[in-house]
Amino acid sequence: MTRGERLAKVVAERELDQLFVSNLTNVRYLTGFTGTNGACLIGGDALIFFTDFRYTERAEHEVGPEWERPEAERELVPQIVGRMSARVGFEDAHLSVRQLARLEAAADDAEVELIPAGDLVEQLRVAKEPEELERIATAAELADDVYRWVLERGLAGRTEHEVARSCEARLRELGAEPGFPPIVAAAENGAIPHAEPGEREIAAGELVVFDMGALLDGYYSDCTRTFATGEISDDDRQVYDLVLRAQGAALEAIRVGASGKEVDAVPREIIKEAGHGDHFGHGTGHGVGLDLHEGPRLATTSEDQLAENTVVTVEPGVYLPGRLGVRIEDLVVVTADGYRNLSGLDKELQVVA
Amino acid sequence: MTRGERLAKVVAERELDQLFVSNLTNVRYLTGFTGTNGACLIGGDALIFFTDFRYTERAEHEVGPEWERPEAERELVPQIVGRMSARVGFEDAHLSVRQLARLEAAADDAEVELIPAGDLVEQLRVAKEPEELERIATAAELADDVYRWVLERGLAGRTEHEVARSCEARLRELGAEPGFPPIVAAAENGAIPHAEPGEREIAAGELVVFDMGALLDGYYSDCTRTFATGEISDDDRQVYDLVLRAQGAALEAIRVGASGKEVDAVPREIIKEAGHGDHFGHGTGHGVGLDLHEGPRLATTSEDQLAENTVVTVEPGVYLPGRLGVRIEDLVVVTADGYRNLSGLDKELQVVA
Repeated sequence: MTRGERLAKVVAERELDQLFVSNLTNVRYLTGFTGTNGACLIGGDALIFFTDFRYTERAEHEVGPEWERPEAERELVPQIVGRMSARVGFEDAHLSVRQLARLEAAADDAEVELIPAGDLVEQLRVAKEPEELERIATAAELADDVYRWVLERGLAGRTEHEVARSCEARLRELGAEPGFPPIVAAAENGAIPHAEPGEREIAAGELVVFDMGALLDGYYSDCTRTFATGEISDDDRQVYDLVLRAQGAALEAIRVGASGKEVDAVPREIIKEAGHGDHFGHGTGHGVGLDLHEGPRLATTSEDQLAENTVVTVEPGVYLPGRLGVRIEDLVVVTADGYRNLSGLDKELQVVA
Repeated sequence: MTRGERLAKVVAERELDQLFVSNLTNVRYLTGFTGTNGACLIGGDALIFFTDFRYTERAEHEVGPEWERPEAERELVPQIVGRMSARVGFEDAHLSVRQLARLEAAADDAEVELIPAGDLVEQLRVAKEPEELERIATAAELADDVYRWVLERGLAGRTEHEVARSCEARLRELGAEPGFPPIVAAAENGAIPHAEPGEREIAAGELVVFDMGALLDGYYSDCTRTFATGEISDDDRQVYDLVLRAQGAALEAIRVGASGKEVDAVPREIIKEAGHGDHFGHGTGHGVGLDLHEGPRLATTSEDQLAENTVVTVEPGVYLPGRLGVRIEDLVVVTADGYRNLSGLDKELQVVA
């Protein structure tokens, strides 16, 4: 069954006649289309894909034969509404209030009822297909290669900004894009969760939080390591070892059926027992795929459960304001009996020049 | 008067008690904040800026003293709703249906009425301040430099993709980002409006549509030229000269008070008279600033008027399917007596190797 056909089943189960998919990442997932103006209607016996004349040729190559492709104007709404019937779900997390008002105005005469339908495509996207897992694994390997390349060139004596930019350039040389602006945060900057790499020169004997990922062929990877530039104090070392232990325990909690809340509690408890409960101010992880952040969430407030072939990050951290940060993040596939780690870099503290 | 204070006046004129600004580009325009989680409430005597702990330090540096900055949680909505009162406008083009539902649920007990308020900040953004014009001009000059750098290295014998990537790399070397993926489309590819630069090698004697811009310090530039790689046929030359004449005439129609529809009609009429009415399938131009595409539009369906210090592209084109495309695009500032051209590259047909 194609993705569109699987979605059509879900749509019927939800007692909708059709689903209107407007989010471009979801459109890409369903159809393969990579342009910037496209939408789908799924339901009944029809899978319909809409784009305008600028993308007709691209759609011919990208969109599968199971999709009907009517000719459409640049403003897709009238055409789409013309094909709507009865109870039509829409993606309320993505459609703007104005877009909905326009749809409703255009559908005024037709007997169409527009219904917020939540994240039906996102739910399909959670469990990855083998080909998707391969793409994410390839992106992760490529990011590992960039890490190794950067470390060979050393960290101490360079600015955070310089290191981050060289990373981006190397990702591009290897045919990928940065999945996000890399974080390179030395010593006390490591304690600022969203530090922008600055003009601060990395000194010897510091801990450096390094968070980086690739975007390759539509899929993201995400990996954090914390490196030492020379010998560090025993106190700093203890923080590193604590996070390493917490991260390892979190990994061991990963398995099909575990809840996001349950996995999150494992490293949180270890970090709390060590007296750093207030210094781990974010969730343990998030799903990764066509979006850098997607379901499921591993967090205190998560209501998600881990399914087979889901890809998640596992990334506890400890942040001591004014002093340092340590975060260790792997990207893993949830398997029947545990997990498969897509991040290939050592996690024992690496001392780099 | 600061931008926030000017907006507060508009809000009062619209008989709103407050405006809730959630679009991050608009938040940046008003406050200077460049993080990824922020919002504003404007109205009464208060200018309030909300962000979470991750960005507190950044906001201290970036956000002006006229803004109150209460501490907020990562989920900003409860805090924001707590400060809302009476008739509160929201940005209906940006707020999702789900976000509005959440706001409404959170505001349930308070006496708050949420009202779609259109593009109030976007309207302020149309006429640029001197400092903004300077930033856009600097971005345009930088893109001109990249054009010259690329042309020195020649086009014929390289693939479109290679040329486009070298452009991106050069933009980054000079401290900018590509404003969008550059278009490099040779011969018949030039007729596909959104061609992706491909593995096709650019041959001698072809017309190459080249569309590129910089993103620098938050502001975009946008410039298209069509180059010849050696001698071209008389027929091709005629198409080039037609577009050049149409583009020049469009520029002469630019002045304060002209309507977007009126300016659009000038090149359209010239192209139509030459028998190519069906071969110019897009608008004549669009505003440029903190967004690559913003108001006003120069198009057949535009209802915009040109104000002083607005920045617009002027970019008619002719596209002959299966054969070639020609587009010439300048970026100009609307002035009291006409326009000031920010694009410094020759428009007479340039023959490059």
